[in-house]
Amino acid sequence: MTSLPPLNDALDAARADAELFDFLRIPSVSADSRRKGDMLRAAEFLQSKLASLGFTARVDRTAGHPVVYAERVASPERPTVLIYGHYDVQPEAPEGEWLSDPFEPTVRDGRIYARGATDDKGQAYAHVQGVELLLGQGDLPVNVKFLLEGEEEVGSPNLETYLRERAEELACDVIVISDGSRFARDVPTVTYGLRGLSYIEVHVQGANRDLHSGSYGGAAPNPINALAQIIARLKDEQGRITIPGFYDSIAELTEQERAMWAQLPHSDQEFAASIGVSALPGEAGYSTLERLWARPTLDVNGIWGGYQGEGSKTVIAAKAGAKISMRLVPGQDPARITKLAQDYITSLAPQGVSVKVIDHHGGQPIAMDLDSPYIAAADRALQRVYGKKAAFGRTGGSIPIVASFRAILGAPVLLVDLGLNEDAPHSPNESFALEDYHNGILTSAYLLQELGADETSQSG
Amino acid sequence: MTSLPPLNDALDAARADAELFDFLRIPSVSADSRRKGDMLRAAEFLQSKLASLGFTARVDRTAGHPVVYAERVASPERPTVLIYGHYDVQPEAPEGEWLSDPFEPTVRDGRIYARGATDDKGQAYAHVQGVELLLGQGDLPVNVKFLLEGEEEVGSPNLETYLRERAEELACDVIVISDGSRFARDVPTVTYGLRGLSYIEVHVQGANRDLHSGSYGGAAPNPINALAQIIARLKDEQGRITIPGFYDSIAELTEQERAMWAQLPHSDQEFAASIGVSALPGEAGYSTLERLWARPTLDVNGIWGGYQGEGSKTVIAAKAGAKISMRLVPGQDPARITKLAQDYITSLAPQGVSVKVIDHHGGQPIAMDLDSPYIAAADRALQRVYGKKAAFGRTGGSIPIVASFRAILGAPVLLVDLGLNEDAPHSPNESFALEDYHNGILTSAYLLQELGADETSQSG
Repeated sequence: MTSLPPLNDALDAARADAELFDFLRIPSVSADSRRKGDMLRAAEFLQSKLASLGFTARVDRTAGHPVVYAERVASPERPTVLIYGHYDVQPEAPEGEWLSDPFEPTVRDGRIYARGATDDKGQAYAHVQGVELLLGQGDLPVNVKFLLEGEEEVGSPNLETYLRERAEELACDVIVISDGSRFARDVPTVTYGLRGLSYIEVHVQGANRDLHSGSYGGAAPNPINALAQIIARLKDEQGRITIPGFYDSIAELTEQERAMWAQLPHSDQEFAASIGVSALPGEAGYSTLERLWARPTLDVNGIWGGYQGEGSKTVIAAKAGAKISMRLVPGQDPARITKLAQDYITSLAPQGVSVKVIDHHGGQPIAMDLDSPYIAAADRALQRVYGKKAAFGRTGGSIPIVASFRAILGAPVLLVDLGLNEDAPHSPNESFALEDYHNGILTSAYLLQELGADETSQSG
Repeated sequence: MTSLPPLNDALDAARADAELFDFLRIPSVSADSRRKGDMLRAAEFLQSKLASLGFTARVDRTAGHPVVYAERVASPERPTVLIYGHYDVQPEAPEGEWLSDPFEPTVRDGRIYARGATDDKGQAYAHVQGVELLLGQGDLPVNVKFLLEGEEEVGSPNLETYLRERAEELACDVIVISDGSRFARDVPTVTYGLRGLSYIEVHVQGANRDLHSGSYGGAAPNPINALAQIIARLKDEQGRITIPGFYDSIAELTEQERAMWAQLPHSDQEFAASIGVSALPGEAGYSTLERLWARPTLDVNGIWGGYQGEGSKTVIAAKAGAKISMRLVPGQDPARITKLAQDYITSLAPQGVSVKVIDHHGGQPIAMDLDSPYIAAADRALQRVYGKKAAFGRTGGSIPIVASFRAILGAPVLLVDLGLNEDAPHSPNESFALEDYHNGILTSAYLLQELGADETSQSG
């Protein structure tokens, strides 16, 4: 255990709440062009706050909304931590479903209700407050850089360019992001892996025009039947993907991970009930969490062809198509998987049709080494806040910015989620528990302390 | 061979052409409500012509466009032939693609260009002229009833009611319809079979809402993958449909039919080239014509689910659907096949999804006995016109009015097609060869003669 002192008593919660409320009052909706001024106000709010904490803080222009960048160097010998967050929020629509003004934070039952409360103003501002808390105790234990963007909710179109142009300035040992949900209320969580993605589109062409199914049925190739046949052949009876080479060099789960996940409070029955299904089909031999977090998938995301209107039309369509995504896991390279899928799908073309496979985009899978000292530091920080060991999970999705950070800055990314699914990010009545906000501030402060502690204390 | 005298010399082609042109000048587009008056004019044109030939002729109101009904009884002892045709035509759109006014018949290269030239004004009026030709020689050899409707191009919505209400008046021994295309230019054709139809729609439901494919992929059921799997299982590697009981009690092709069809001028290569495909896949063990005319099919006519827009969206759809039609052949009952398909498809539902199968509509398959005296009479009539034996083929499509005639009037239907595919019915520059029109008039006259000849001469 660590010997660092607790900071609970030092936290001025009322002041921290009041500041966050001011931040939440700025309707920084990145998707709404009429709110360009509000976006700038939110950026300046952060810049001014960070400057007041002794950071060199700037509002950097981009081709879209600005990036707030701030840094405070404690000592060139200390590790450097880059904290990423975003100050833009989702649109408030449908406005009629809010019980209180989305841009006038309101506390009910211990929760702050406001657009952006959890995603991501609340979680990002917890780090600003965490830094302030530490500064109240003396200097910072690490060098801290803040990168707070304004375009996360519109797909971060300018972030990668920003990172490339300033890679040197942004250099760091570890990146910390808090922009998600803990596994469950009582489960402090570190997310150490993300799946990657290979997204393709399949086009099947039959005749040179739509044909009458009476006059041609029985002789003309049917591209919809052909497409269905191709899709059906992409998985076997065990739910395993049949693309040759697909599973080669996948990093198998360790016994440690399987045991760890088996202990998480997860119920297949509740999970199935939450989406209204009677079963959770998937690859044989893996638990649901294992399938969601550490096994690759192949899902058709869209399909079309022929007549989709009311009633009946006896047509044999000239063409059909489908969008297919594969979630990838460490060991799989998106470009290689896309190529394997293209080759295999093309080879499955039934007689009489031609098949074309388009490469949409891909994303690298990521997993941090569970033995990494950063993981251990996060675990210790969360133990100090919650009094229990953290859960180490992964997530089934892909977070493109994480892959960008990893690829461009070359530093590992620590995902320390402070929110909960019940916060309803992106939905009306988004909220953030005051307790989670306060614990988030402590988590941030303790994490920076732990990351700054020397190796001896880290392994203590 | 028959001993009936040839009528070629008696045909006044110029007068027959002029009359048809007058008929074609009336823009009787049933789908165009502004042409209600023209519809009535076309009906009255026919009524007046048939009355002039000594028929009792009426224009009967229906809930839609009127039916022209006319009859001329030669003798209660003679057979009664009901000739069906339609005086309504397809809309002329796209008008700009016509080389001459669609409602001003124009002769170019021996062809009459006009909307309705072949479908069906020209073919129907050939029968009116055939009757007139016979009347020039004396009385009619059979009792003749004309039923000429005005709603064929809009699906004959009121014909079945009309048939039911007047079944007694319409009673006949055989029904003759000329509303289609011969197999080829030099192949006089009798069509003696039509496929039936069972049309269903399959709905597959997964989760209660669209899900993120990252967060849920690997555990949530995917209704599109499930639907593809179901569709793929409906046929085996040999192209045979796998629905249990599907092929039970199908009337197999006779050796006579197979031999007859094998001699028709058909080229797989040309057929494939005409629709731009490299192969004509289908049930193993049958030729293309056999598969088109005498074997059942299962074609997906439409499919949908998930994201169909530009680019990529990582969604697991809540539901997916497909429209599926099965062409049926004699021996298969549409209601029974629909039930078998519903049961089987439902049984194929993969884990986690629910499957519903909706019955759209069905149609009875029909085949006339090749040994029927009516078939023999048609063969003799066509030999007299063309100097060669007729081809006996079937058609892959379903003609709902034929099933209605068969079911309500209980009489066999002789399909004696006078046109050609190159007439381009329903398209701009629809035409009808003058030669085909004149041969059609002779065919009609000879057919009525042959149908009226006594059994001795029929088998002579």
